[in-house]
Amino acid sequence: MAAGEERKERRILVAVDDSEESMYALSWCLANVVSENPANISKDTVILLYAKPRPAVYTAMDGTGYSFSSDIVAMTERYNNRVADSVMEKAKRMCEEFSDVKVETRVENGDARDVICQVAGKLDPDVLVMGSHGYGIIKRALLGSVSYYCAQNVKCPVLVVKKPKSSVSN
Amino acid sequence: MAAGEERKERRILVAVDDSEESMYALSWCLANVVSENPANISKDTVILLYAKPRPAVYTAMDGTGYSFSSDIVAMTERYNNRVADSVMEKAKRMCEEFSDVKVETRVENGDARDVICQVAGKLDPDVLVMGSHGYGIIKRALLGSVSYYCAQNVKCPVLVVKKPKSSVSN
Repeated sequence: MAAGEERKERRILVAVDDSEESMYALSWCLANVVSENPANISKDTVILLYAKPRPAVYTAMDGTGYSFSSDIVAMTERYNNRVADSVMEKAKRMCEEFSDVKVETRVENGDARDVICQVAGKLDPDVLVMGSHGYGIIKRALLGSVSYYCAQNVKCPVLVVKKPKSSVSN
Repeated sequence: MAAGEERKERRILVAVDDSEESMYALSWCLANVVSENPANISKDTVILLYAKPRPAVYTAMDGTGYSFSSDIVAMTERYNNRVADSVMEKAKRMCEEFSDVKVETRVENGDARDVICQVAGKLDPDVLVMGSHGYGIIKRALLGSVSYYCAQNVKCPVLVVKKPKSSVSN
C-alpha cells in the first residue's frame, strides 16, 4: 500500500474453539489486525469459524468401526451444539466490544484441521488467525499441531497467536 | 482493545532475506498490520532483522572441522555483507514507500532459526512477521521449516505470509 492509499476492506477468518488460547487470539486480532478508523467503524469483516466434532466412532480390535447407540449420539450432538453456540456467543460479544466490525459466523462439522483448510480454501480470506494451544511435546507428537498443519496447507497468510502465560483468562 | 480506545505503539519484528517471499511478507505486513492514521504517520516501529550466514566450515571424513583459507573467508564475508546491505536497503525503501513508519535495522550473524528466535526473545516484539518459502517436501525435510521452528519457539504472535504464485515479483 503506497502512502496516502486507503486500506481495502478485508475478510479475516478467525478459527475459534472453547479454549482460552483461541479467545486470546481473537482479542489480539481485533486489537492489532482489524483496521481502525476515527469513527470506530471498521471496514473489515471478521468471519468466526468453529469446527464441531463429528459423533464419535470407535474401532473394534478387528479393525471394524462401530457407532454408539442413537440416544448417545443424539445427546453428544446436543452437547456439541451447545458448545458451538456458547463459543460463538462469546466470540461475537468480544467483536461487539471492539468496534462496529462486521461479523459472520460459520459452524462446520469435522476435524478442525480439515474444516479450517477447507473453509480457508473456499473463502480465500485475507488472513487466517488461529490460537496456539502450546501443547507439550508428547501431545503434539500424538495430535499434531493444528496451526502448523493449516499454515502448511492454506494459501493465505496465517497468524498464530500464543497466549502469554501471564495473561488473564478471557 | 475496547471501542474508542486508541491503538498502542507496537514493535513489529520482520525477518527479511534476499528472497521474494520475504519482501512480499514485509509488503503484506506494511499494508495490513502496521497501523494507519489520516496523516499516514504510523505509531508503530518496524524492526527489520537479517540473519547473515557465518563463514562456512566443512567437516572432514574423520569428523574434524576445517575452515577455508583466510582469503576465501574474507571474500565470503564481503559478499555476505553486500547481500545484507542490499536486502536492508530494499526493505527500508519499501517501508518508506508505505508511510512514515519508524524503521530500525538489525543484522546478526548465524543460522536464521537461531537468530530470529534469539532476537525475538530479547526484544519481545508485539508480533514476528516472516515469509514462507514454500519449500517442497524434500527440501523441507532436509532443512526444516524456519517459520515452523520460530512459531514453536518464540512467545509472541507469529504471522507467516505465503507469496501467492500469481503475484508479481517485488
